[in-house]
Amino acid sequence: MTDEPQRGGRPRDTRVDAAILAATRTLLAEVGYGALTMDLVAGRANVGKAAIYRRYAGKQDLVFAAAVHGRTLDPPPDSGDLRTDLRWLVGGIARSLSSPETRAALPALLADVTADDDVADRFMRTFVAEERAYVETILDQARRRGDLRTPVDAEVVHSLVLGAIFARIYLLRKPADKAYQHEVTDLAAKALTEGAR
Amino acid sequence: MTDEPQRGGRPRDTRVDAAILAATRTLLAEVGYGALTMDLVAGRANVGKAAIYRRYAGKQDLVFAAAVHGRTLDPPPDSGDLRTDLRWLVGGIARSLSSPETRAALPALLADVTADDDVADRFMRTFVAEERAYVETILDQARRRGDLRTPVDAEVVHSLVLGAIFARIYLLRKPADKAYQHEVTDLAAKALTEGAR
Repeated sequence: MTDEPQRGGRPRDTRVDAAILAATRTLLAEVGYGALTMDLVAGRANVGKAAIYRRYAGKQDLVFAAAVHGRTLDPPPDSGDLRTDLRWLVGGIARSLSSPETRAALPALLADVTADDDVADRFMRTFVAEERAYVETILDQARRRGDLRTPVDAEVVHSLVLGAIFARIYLLRKPADKAYQHEVTDLAAKALTEGAR
Repeated sequence: MTDEPQRGGRPRDTRVDAAILAATRTLLAEVGYGALTMDLVAGRANVGKAAIYRRYAGKQDLVFAAAVHGRTLDPPPDSGDLRTDLRWLVGGIARSLSSPETRAALPALLADVTADDDVADRFMRTFVAEERAYVETILDQARRRGDLRTPVDAEVVHSLVLGAIFARIYLLRKPADKAYQHEVTDLAAKALTEGAR
């Protein structure tokens, strides 16, 4: 329990927060995004529906918080080696996209995001912006060491790394396992350092 | 009009084929995947619903044919240069994922594909397998010329190129324009040739 204010200025009950998110993740894995309802979550979390609606404007927001936003990366290390930093990035994205609840939710959530500019804007400002900042940090560190060929666009690198792992799991339907992560890290490191020094 | 047999052995009326696909593409751009129904397509194409169901088992199949499968690539050129071949691949995938009807349909179609193993298998056997074969052809050509470092896994390269463009448009919400295509082609070529010869 904390006294942090939240929507409506009520004191935040972190046990209720955690119960709602845990129930949502469990239900995503069990019934999938399409069949998940606020009623089901309320029943599983043993809270009233009002407790959910005080925290989340709707199902998309709740699922986003439970399956995607709650799994953001830690800030990147500065290992002194671009390949090691990239391995960290690739591994973190692969983990965030591979969990059962994320796999159950992400395609339907993406369809909703694409259809709703407000949700898309929120998605871009939170998860995407944070991940982009980490890509920029890793590239800046490499640039300062002289390990990077120039110019490299962080947005393009982000699309390559995030896209490869997304495509592997969701378009090509294979696991983004350690061997795959190693291949992607290796190709990305070669692409970024070729011709440097 | 041709006499090609199709489902049920009936002669194929290519004018009806074309009218159904064109109506589906128009409606995808106008109303989106969620609101598209077989009734709407029949009305717009000025054909009976039975004519659609003789050709497609359901809405997913129809949309897949109209928005994705009908836009497969031509076989790859053998330009004698890996970067040129990659530019062709990147450009073709970018075009196939950028059209208004594809953008209106693909996220919802992907959600359906992920939720239905039969649809997913069909998707993998057609669109994905064909594109994969093109990636393999391009890599084989480069390997025979000695332009490729080894080993390179065609499946990993496919995930990188397809994933980058998919992520650019559908996750990061930017156009996969010529400048972007050039960046991705350049990074892919560097990743694949670094250390060769």
